[in-house]
Amino acid sequence: MALIVHKYGGTSMGSTDRIKNVAKRVAKWHDAGYQIVVVPSAMSGETNRILGLAKEIMADPDPRELDMIASTGEQVSVGLLAIALQALGKKAVSYAGWQVPIKTDSSYTKARIASIDDAKVNADLAEGKIVIITGFQGVDELGNITTLGRGGSDTSAVAIAAALKAQECLIYTDVDGVYTTDPRVVSDARKLNTVTFEEMLEMASLGSKVLQIRSVEFAGNYRMPTRVLSSLTDPLMPLAEEIVSGTLISFEEDTNMEQATITGIAFNRDEAKLTVFGVPDKPGIAYQILGPIADANIEVDMIIQNQSVEGKTDFTFTVPRGDYNKAMDVLNESVKAHIGAGNIIGDSKVSKVSVVGVGMRSHVGIASQMFRTLSDEGINIQMISTSEIKISVLIDEKYMELAVRALHKAFGLEAA
Amino acid sequence: MALIVHKYGGTSMGSTDRIKNVAKRVAKWHDAGYQIVVVPSAMSGETNRILGLAKEIMADPDPRELDMIASTGEQVSVGLLAIALQALGKKAVSYAGWQVPIKTDSSYTKARIASIDDAKVNADLAEGKIVIITGFQGVDELGNITTLGRGGSDTSAVAIAAALKAQECLIYTDVDGVYTTDPRVVSDARKLNTVTFEEMLEMASLGSKVLQIRSVEFAGNYRMPTRVLSSLTDPLMPLAEEIVSGTLISFEEDTNMEQATITGIAFNRDEAKLTVFGVPDKPGIAYQILGPIADANIEVDMIIQNQSVEGKTDFTFTVPRGDYNKAMDVLNESVKAHIGAGNIIGDSKVSKVSVVGVGMRSHVGIASQMFRTLSDEGINIQMISTSEIKISVLIDEKYMELAVRALHKAFGLEAA
Repeated sequence: MALIVHKYGGTSMGSTDRIKNVAKRVAKWHDAGYQIVVVPSAMSGETNRILGLAKEIMADPDPRELDMIASTGEQVSVGLLAIALQALGKKAVSYAGWQVPIKTDSSYTKARIASIDDAKVNADLAEGKIVIITGFQGVDELGNITTLGRGGSDTSAVAIAAALKAQECLIYTDVDGVYTTDPRVVSDARKLNTVTFEEMLEMASLGSKVLQIRSVEFAGNYRMPTRVLSSLTDPLMPLAEEIVSGTLISFEEDTNMEQATITGIAFNRDEAKLTVFGVPDKPGIAYQILGPIADANIEVDMIIQNQSVEGKTDFTFTVPRGDYNKAMDVLNESVKAHIGAGNIIGDSKVSKVSVVGVGMRSHVGIASQMFRTLSDEGINIQMISTSEIKISVLIDEKYMELAVRALHKAFGLEAA
Repeated sequence: MALIVHKYGGTSMGSTDRIKNVAKRVAKWHDAGYQIVVVPSAMSGETNRILGLAKEIMADPDPRELDMIASTGEQVSVGLLAIALQALGKKAVSYAGWQVPIKTDSSYTKARIASIDDAKVNADLAEGKIVIITGFQGVDELGNITTLGRGGSDTSAVAIAAALKAQECLIYTDVDGVYTTDPRVVSDARKLNTVTFEEMLEMASLGSKVLQIRSVEFAGNYRMPTRVLSSLTDPLMPLAEEIVSGTLISFEEDTNMEQATITGIAFNRDEAKLTVFGVPDKPGIAYQILGPIADANIEVDMIIQNQSVEGKTDFTFTVPRGDYNKAMDVLNESVKAHIGAGNIIGDSKVSKVSVVGVGMRSHVGIASQMFRTLSDEGINIQMISTSEIKISVLIDEKYMELAVRALHKAFGLEAA
């Protein structure tokens, strides 16, 4: 019997009436003969509410205790959804991450999944039960509760789907699919029926906030077909329609080669850049700068090292804006004197805009078209970074929307 | 180093400011050289709120899922209290029941503690940490979360104190001790400095709702000195004063023999009685009636079987009012035909009033004084039950307050 994993976000779980709707949808799939595992988020606002209590007590609370607190929202959700399914006459059982168990490392508030035990869940499915598992969390080797970071329920869902060898992972959310760019920025953005895994990876990591990037990585590692679709439709809509709705993240590139060269325009408003001047140009220097940054659990995105002049070079990289002050402290305290660098400067008001598409591989001139479009709008490019299927530029935050709209139009991505 | 267990109720944990006050009090004890384990309840109203969501979805939800949901309130509390202690510069670590682990049976919503592992907690205490453990919950052999039922945090605290061989278990609550009766019913009720374990057992089980009865049983089984005291005092009040405040449940009877014959008047408003008529008077019949009741997890309190007439007798017992309908169903469905009984009737508007005191053992005439007092007030006695240190009567609910006040006065229990 085919197994499908459903994931529902906080908005979909936001009230008991909405939870009843989720239960109706899940029951419909179960009635159609699928085995179902559901991964719900906490009720919307709940995790923020309880973490807010912690912040009222202390500005910078212990991450282990934050995870202890933050993990409870999903635990309430799974219990409520189990009850809602039982109210519809279904057999249902809920598990917290530690009960499955979903083993993670010990990086509190941003843990990574190490393994998922499928024994209990498979036994329940074999008995005809619908299994409901908390998203966003797991347990480390020592039995401490960990969370995967915001949006981690997507990652949980895809990882669980992979561990259980599900046929497909359905991510129900408050948007009805993946668009060529954020429709709030470009009103005629177009919904994509499929995107390749690699495109989705670039779209997600670059800020089209439909799916958490790690969930896309998991989907890719395990070639798990993952579909983003709306939870706002009638829960009893015909299954045949629902099955093909939304946007499928596909692993079949060929079908996409017929499509447009560029799939979408991604962006990330909340970037910050840091530059270390006068860095001695010798082997190992990049590691000596970025090692301490990584040790502080800060993710580095774009990296540029200029051609050296008189044995010195400048080194620039970007980090999430929320980590800007921490990164600056690390550079000043652990890096600057150690490597004998000069000044350190930064700018926390920069944004990244990217054009993404697998078709780019076989087409020349995408980069020049992008740069010309931005130039026509008078937008200065601060940094450039490229991969096989995307070109990203760092620009002043205030031009971000303008850049996205101009590029969306220039590459002909509007809805027909 | 002496170990003390503190337990704080939901009101004491009711806001972040109150949690900070709890932290100040705990830190004061730790500063004075005690090792401290804290068992907090959920923030007041929180458990009702989330269980209310479950009831919105289904009238009679699965107890396993209820425990999954209900256990989260305490998990938030332990995390917040750990953070509040860390904000005061203390090392503190929180654990959910399953992490200790606190093993229980699988009676969801009313589980019983089977064992408590002291290894992790002792290791933390040895490192100078304050350890905070969720009350009210544990984990069964299969890894399912269980709760101990309302008020179960008291039981958790005393059981943890016993397992860790603590010097004393302090139950901080919104009353400042145990009174001769409920001050809301009798305004000049007097606070007791000590009560014996046996008296407390009768007082708690009979409805003086200061401590959950199972916590008193645990205290008795392990001879764990347990003190009820107020959390509403200044958290920084001198320790010498706080140490002797409240009411100590003592295991030294002799000191009490000098005191008044009667220690207090207990009562339980929410009783219900059921009578099975025409029961064949033969061996095993009580078991055949009460066995199915016990199997349905209903606690039976008073039991009366009348002298038989022509081989038939009547059998009456009381249960908590909340279990009245369930008990009636069990009698009608599983008992009546099986034993060949006649009619079954019941009354769900009865209350129990008891006089309690170890001094009763060496004094005659307590019962007759009690009955005369009730008779003088025109109160009819429906059932009587006695033990070595208490006499209980079942009366019409509407006379309960009157009976308690009259008995409190008749036995001279008023504050001086």
